[in-house]
Amino acid sequence: MKNIELEPFEKEREIRNVFEEKTSKEEKLPAWKETKVIGKKIPRVDGYELVSGTAKYSSDINLPGMLYAKILRSPHPHTEIIDIDSSKAEALPGVKGVLCYKNAPKIKWWSDKSFLFDRTVRYVGDEVAAILAENKHIAEDALKLIEVTYKPLPYLLDPEEAMKPEAPKIWPEGNLMLFRGEPVRSYSRGDVEKGFAEADIILERKYTSQVALHCPMETHSDVANWDGDYLTLWESSQGVFWTQEQVAQKLNIPVNKIRIICPYLGGAFGSKWELNKQSIIAALFAKETGRPVKIIATRQENMVAYEHRPSSIQYIKAGVKKDGTLAVLKLKYISPIGAYPWLYAGSGDEVRYLYRCNNVETDEYIVYTNVGRAGAMRAPGCPEESFALEQMMDELAEKLNMDPLELRLKNDTKLYQRSGKPYAGKGLTECMEQGAKLFGWENRKKPGASRGRKKKGIGMACGQWGDGGRPPATTIVKINYDGTVNLITGASDLGTGTRTVMSMIVAEELSVPIETIEITNADTETTCHTIYSGGSVTVASVGPSVRLAAYDAKKKLLALAAYEMKVDKKDVDINGGIIFQKSNPDNKFTIKEIASKAIDRVIVGVGKRKPNDYDFQDNIFCCHFVELAADSVTGEIKLLRYVAAHDSARVLNRFTYDNQIHGGIGMGIGYALSEERIMDKATGKMLNVNLLDYKIASQIDMPEKITTYAAEIPYPRNNISVKGLGEPPTIPPAATIANALYNALGIRFFSLPLTPDKVIQALKKRK
Amino acid sequence: MKNIELEPFEKEREIRNVFEEKTSKEEKLPAWKETKVIGKKIPRVDGYELVSGTAKYSSDINLPGMLYAKILRSPHPHTEIIDIDSSKAEALPGVKGVLCYKNAPKIKWWSDKSFLFDRTVRYVGDEVAAILAENKHIAEDALKLIEVTYKPLPYLLDPEEAMKPEAPKIWPEGNLMLFRGEPVRSYSRGDVEKGFAEADIILERKYTSQVALHCPMETHSDVANWDGDYLTLWESSQGVFWTQEQVAQKLNIPVNKIRIICPYLGGAFGSKWELNKQSIIAALFAKETGRPVKIIATRQENMVAYEHRPSSIQYIKAGVKKDGTLAVLKLKYISPIGAYPWLYAGSGDEVRYLYRCNNVETDEYIVYTNVGRAGAMRAPGCPEESFALEQMMDELAEKLNMDPLELRLKNDTKLYQRSGKPYAGKGLTECMEQGAKLFGWENRKKPGASRGRKKKGIGMACGQWGDGGRPPATTIVKINYDGTVNLITGASDLGTGTRTVMSMIVAEELSVPIETIEITNADTETTCHTIYSGGSVTVASVGPSVRLAAYDAKKKLLALAAYEMKVDKKDVDINGGIIFQKSNPDNKFTIKEIASKAIDRVIVGVGKRKPNDYDFQDNIFCCHFVELAADSVTGEIKLLRYVAAHDSARVLNRFTYDNQIHGGIGMGIGYALSEERIMDKATGKMLNVNLLDYKIASQIDMPEKITTYAAEIPYPRNNISVKGLGEPPTIPPAATIANALYNALGIRFFSLPLTPDKVIQALKKRK
Repeated sequence: MKNIELEPFEKEREIRNVFEEKTSKEEKLPAWKETKVIGKKIPRVDGYELVSGTAKYSSDINLPGMLYAKILRSPHPHTEIIDIDSSKAEALPGVKGVLCYKNAPKIKWWSDKSFLFDRTVRYVGDEVAAILAENKHIAEDALKLIEVTYKPLPYLLDPEEAMKPEAPKIWPEGNLMLFRGEPVRSYSRGDVEKGFAEADIILERKYTSQVALHCPMETHSDVANWDGDYLTLWESSQGVFWTQEQVAQKLNIPVNKIRIICPYLGGAFGSKWELNKQSIIAALFAKETGRPVKIIATRQENMVAYEHRPSSIQYIKAGVKKDGTLAVLKLKYISPIGAYPWLYAGSGDEVRYLYRCNNVETDEYIVYTNVGRAGAMRAPGCPEESFALEQMMDELAEKLNMDPLELRLKNDTKLYQRSGKPYAGKGLTECMEQGAKLFGWENRKKPGASRGRKKKGIGMACGQWGDGGRPPATTIVKINYDGTVNLITGASDLGTGTRTVMSMIVAEELSVPIETIEITNADTETTCHTIYSGGSVTVASVGPSVRLAAYDAKKKLLALAAYEMKVDKKDVDINGGIIFQKSNPDNKFTIKEIASKAIDRVIVGVGKRKPNDYDFQDNIFCCHFVELAADSVTGEIKLLRYVAAHDSARVLNRFTYDNQIHGGIGMGIGYALSEERIMDKATGKMLNVNLLDYKIASQIDMPEKITTYAAEIPYPRNNISVKGLGEPPTIPPAATIANALYNALGIRFFSLPLTPDKVIQALKKRK
Repeated sequence: MKNIELEPFEKEREIRNVFEEKTSKEEKLPAWKETKVIGKKIPRVDGYELVSGTAKYSSDINLPGMLYAKILRSPHPHTEIIDIDSSKAEALPGVKGVLCYKNAPKIKWWSDKSFLFDRTVRYVGDEVAAILAENKHIAEDALKLIEVTYKPLPYLLDPEEAMKPEAPKIWPEGNLMLFRGEPVRSYSRGDVEKGFAEADIILERKYTSQVALHCPMETHSDVANWDGDYLTLWESSQGVFWTQEQVAQKLNIPVNKIRIICPYLGGAFGSKWELNKQSIIAALFAKETGRPVKIIATRQENMVAYEHRPSSIQYIKAGVKKDGTLAVLKLKYISPIGAYPWLYAGSGDEVRYLYRCNNVETDEYIVYTNVGRAGAMRAPGCPEESFALEQMMDELAEKLNMDPLELRLKNDTKLYQRSGKPYAGKGLTECMEQGAKLFGWENRKKPGASRGRKKKGIGMACGQWGDGGRPPATTIVKINYDGTVNLITGASDLGTGTRTVMSMIVAEELSVPIETIEITNADTETTCHTIYSGGSVTVASVGPSVRLAAYDAKKKLLALAAYEMKVDKKDVDINGGIIFQKSNPDNKFTIKEIASKAIDRVIVGVGKRKPNDYDFQDNIFCCHFVELAADSVTGEIKLLRYVAAHDSARVLNRFTYDNQIHGGIGMGIGYALSEERIMDKATGKMLNVNLLDYKIASQIDMPEKITTYAAEIPYPRNNISVKGLGEPPTIPPAATIANALYNALGIRFFSLPLTPDKVIQALKKRK
């Protein structure tokens, strides 16, 4: 068995794991028995702030004397810059500065061959120059006064075109991103030739998926301010410590001279994980002028010049034995990531690990084209791969004359095929079985059996994601002398409810009312080094450290209480905020009464997430079901009901749990039915740069009913028995809908999105 | 032996000491052998910020939409308020609010019988109302439009008048502040009657001292801002956690809803320790309007309506035996503290504890008068008491025909007479002997022996202060993955160099360049609960916790290094920033190389100040010497040279050590020679409310030469062997100068300040 090249973050973890605290394991905490807070429907602790507009996002930060920066972006998809004349712009009253290749520091960006400002720009929207002015209107006017002499170069939009030997080269090494010098990243286990030989049925299909754009409510936002050599940056960031690290590297200054702040975040979905140029442009301008600088990407910039989910072309060849045993899976994956390298490009792990299969081979080709750079977007690689694999599973089942659910159940595995070790807790079978039950899967009709104008159909699909959480995550819980509590965590709350569930963990462990907890988060100055909120790792990385911190504080509180009550430590307990003597429950005190005696005026608990005691991540699984009606006249698809069963171990908050799943399904629906970046081949420009023409799902597109099911399989690898839930819900929707559409119409669709025109054309073609 | 009633902070400590960590003592750290940083002349780490104006003081905070508050103050020394009509003020464009007794919440202030705004006001300057406006000019204009109907009441300015039974009462209980219901606070040990019977020489004298005003560079400054129910207050505060506690109490909100910030402070000297009304006025206005509110006391307000050193009338009767043994000391101390109670009013401990004396009695009367409230000012009670006691010592010596130095040496004691236990390290004898040697005391001439117009004379005096530091003080030291270091402490830096010496402790313990350390201090959100910077406790309270934190971080760093180097922990050490294998020094790494391997990306050291393992504070001592020339024509006193010998254990930084002593002497000189609040008896108003007429010492008043001597007696009661140095230098100057003036002129002065007019009148009187 040959392992795929480790993902960068795993390499990092592998390096780290051997040091320091490998041997010192996390304290084993007793499992919660009957919970009072955890698992309940607890409203957001910051609900008022969020809906009233009092929550301060990065874009809400206004400082006295603040200046505004704007970026001039390339109008050409590939061009050399012969000259930039900014004299007219600089002469405009209120303009405070210009940055371009002529005066900007040579800061490497995205690749060793590209800098903050280059003389060659590689897509429509690429950074050409930046303007600083007294307000954003002057900055916008000044942009138009910058005179740039361009020398346009040949450009490439289509990945398969770009892969041709005769194609013009975007980079000297060619148009394929290199993995350790190789133009393809290959993985294999077993022997695919043997697999095909053993297979009774073999299918080969091509699937394509579109580019999907990030449309968070809050676009990329920064405010930079220097106090001497100390930079404070309010940035809409998924991980303030990770942003701090990247800023330190880009500006080549010590990390202890940088403060990143982001307690509130208006959505991220992976797009606010890597540092973008605007952060450093703001910092450079602020340093130069000694004044605070704000920069906010417009909606258009956010759509054109920032991360997106890349499109894909997937060739899957699969073989299955008569009894339904999956014999072989072969994937060729082609994905264009735009003009600049992206380390995390490639397929997800669906083909490689979702089902038991002894013979697997995957080859991934990552192609440069002259469009904006791709980046992480909610389960990178997975929804598109699920769209391919899960339709293939359905087709194989049909050929076998087997129920698609049965085929999947048959090929479920208890082993994590990457490490060969058993999963610690896997609930995929439970998800499939219980989801099917809730949904009424047994009433499934034959494909194309639906009559009338609106053809109904049902479909299902599964998905998998990692991982099980990891360091760094250090949390502080303070019990103040007045009995109130502070929870201090470095974690960003992307809008998912992190602040709420972390507060719940403290409330549960300390047995205090959640209202008495003040949470401080995502500020490198006030909180401890914590992993970014990305990859669905937050709850499983940070949550255990929060419980440890609360537990530590509680231990100290009870020790102080025992001293105060002159009784043995073991004879003291806490319940409902009351500390009492177990053998004499009338001997009792409030938390405040005890905490007020603390010699330091505060009891401080610290919780540090220790490395997991296993080599690789565990996975998270899910299984979705949908019933839809396809209008055979308009081609419109209406989702009727949806069941989402998730194997994410313990549910911390029934509200935020449902929020995550509903949101993920919504995002998956937009991806399945309507979202698509449309490029103009003649100019290299994006045509639908707005939220009318680029259609994300809204309330009206949601299924009439969504039922969630949680397979709460105990998960022993962290002290609160949780797995992540951020990404998984967005993985199966496209495949689920495509399978249901096949069930409704008897027509298979191999290309996303499933827009009305495609449906109508397919229906016409069949006629 | 009867102990004086415990000071409030000692009561507090007594309560706390018995809890929690009484039994867990501080880790014993190895003593520093050869120091590389500690004890050297290290410039201020924030020197650039301080002199360039880039350091942000509370008064420098400007927030968008900020409003400005101003206080209307009473023009009468004692008056009832019949009515307040603010309608004209409120009608002025730009006025945003008014607060007065009619609408302000009933927040108790200074006493149980007084509130934030009262219907009776008790001194010229007392708070009558407050205005909020768009800017301070509008606020000032609006103040004049508030129409107040007063009904003036009889008032008292003179404390001895106020003590008369027939005097009008400022408070229902009378004009003497009550100590546990008693109008006098009495202390005695031994038997004073027996003492007088045994004495061979008995002297009885009356001494008076004036009111001295706080004149810090930065006046009281606040900016209040609410985020929902969370208050951030930038306040010029000596102790952010102590301010937080007071704000919580006044506003009756949880401490975890309050953030106090004060990394820089433009001088405090005791005046920024208690919460003043302006902080709460700003907070109330900010809450009401939802906008930030700034309030800055003008210089005049700072002089009239905030803390000051109260005047005193001291009667000392002392007896001494022929051999110089001090037989008896009796003190009657009368001090007016203005119109409101002050818990810490009273004499210092000079008479009670400076010299060995078996028979001591002190009676303290604290009197209300209709002036602003007194408060802490650099060694409260001590300079005035030193002025009395140390002149008495000189007079006794003269009667005994003994050298004043010899009399003091004879009566030095190794016991702390409050507890009866020996001092842990006392250097008063060394200070006296070495100071005298440096000064050339043996050349002292007889009093009045100087000839010519400018009469030269020398004098000396001693002083004592407490204490030895105490919790709470928790410090964090972080070693980041790039090798840089963060030092996080709750301590305020009053301008004394706290940030610098704390950084030095880290640099010494970690062996890192001081430039790599970033310090965060005095912010309740970013730092750990720490004692206020007052009472000279900072270095002895916080310093040990800083060393513990650095030591803890170092231990963890070296453990990680040993793991990395695959060698035994004991075989690893650090020197000059290089971590090496002791048995093979070529096997070495930089701190960065090791720190980058930390699993949490950061190595965190925590240091907690534990309670001292003794009942009471130790004391700090000093002995000053001066030579002066008194101009017999103009009466002016010119200080020629000064020797200040201090028993403050280890010197951390030769620069800041000298800064503290020079500054303390300067303050003592102003107090001795020129500072005096002058009240108009006819109106109850202060006449010299400005820095021209109220003359503090400036560079021109300083001695031509100041020599400092440090008696660096090892002090085992904390891990860095330090005592405080903030207050002591300001204690003996007035007494030292008075004794030198006697030596110059042969005339004794019993009343401070020693202004030219007094000198001339005394010379005339003698003629």
